Amino acid sequence: MRRLVFWFDLASTYSWLSAMRIAPLAEAAGVEVVWRPFLLGPIFRAQGWETSPFNVYPAKGRHMWVDLARQAAKRGLPPPVRPEPFPARSLLACRVATALEGAARADFVRACFGAEFARGADIADPGVLAPLCGDAALAAAETPAVKAALREATGEAMARGIFGAPSFTASSMAGEALWWGDDRLEDALAAA
Amino acid sequence: MRRLVFWFDLASTYSWLSAMRIAPLAEAAGVEVVWRPFLLGPIFRAQGWETSPFNVYPAKGRHMWVDLARQAAKRGLPPPVRPEPFPARSLLACRVATALEGAARADFVRACFGAEFARGADIADPGVLAPLCGDAALAAAETPAVKAALREATGEAMARGIFGAPSFTASSMAGEALWWGDDRLEDALAAA
Repeated sequence: MRRLVFWFDLASTYSWLSAMRIAPLAEAAGVEVVWRPFLLGPIFRAQGWETSPFNVYPAKGRHMWVDLARQAAKRGLPPPVRPEPFPARSLLACRVATALEGAARADFVRACFGAEFARGADIADPGVLAPLCGDAALAAAETPAVKAALREATGEAMARGIFGAPSFTASSMAGEALWWGDDRLEDALAAA
Repeated sequence: MRRLVFWFDLASTYSWLSAMRIAPLAEAAGVEVVWRPFLLGPIFRAQGWETSPFNVYPAKGRHMWVDLARQAAKRGLPPPVRPEPFPARSLLACRVATALEGAARADFVRACFGAEFARGADIADPGVLAPLCGDAALAAAETPAVKAALREATGEAMARGIFGAPSFTASSMAGEALWWGDDRLEDALAAA
């Protein structure tokens, strides 16, 4: 079975859109999805940004919320709520996602994005995450091994030329291909 | 007939994609297109950039050329050539587009984008533009009225919250709506 790696940060608005639709689309395409959490923060800092580009560039940020609401409506998702703060401090949630595996990871990611963007919950709050992931995953998230794995994923993303989220990568004999943005999910699945 | 304003800069890679397909799509949708050249430079400078964001952020820029080639292939366009310099100094070409009207403007814009991105020509060179627009338009481009009209279009774009190209705007009783990016052309036409 062909594989597509889905790179996301739990603070990323357009990653929410992809997370909610990638599983059925991938199944229909006969593609296995590898869900890989990473941190946008270090990548944005390397580009000179101390926060989301949607905050750095206000006109772009204002338009993003309009566009996100349109895309969410097209896909039958609830109207997006801007969480406070924005972007969310997603470190703990990305560690939880790293601590989980397989279907449990995908289920948590969808639930976490829903809490954040459909209900405006603060995903930096362990009390918000615990009902979504369980106490064991929350504890595992704080272990050195999980922290190191997330740092490693972020370094790997940067080394692959990833500069935003969601991103998708697929390997073939011809090398590795990268797609950026929820709008390219279909292309990535078709090419995987 | 409903109207959609198509905002573009002749240096903009993704505006090339929209320029080559907007006319038939708009005709099928029963929408009149108003082709409005403007300058991205002042808008980028207001965001703190002295050049294209594709140069400011190299990882994003590298990926853009890969993505542009994929999108061009999907639409039956020739493989894009990176013009030198990039971005092109599009001031003269945008003034020529401003000097022309109606179908002559659209024809010139398509020809100019083709010269730039299908053949890698330098659209800052009057000798490249003259065969595409005629000597009269080239002369008109240097008149104070045309220069002022292009400055005004750029100011109007900024006032409308436009932060990149291509952008699309449509007015209704509910106010003005903005879409950004070639990927949103279909949505913009459907909503216009």
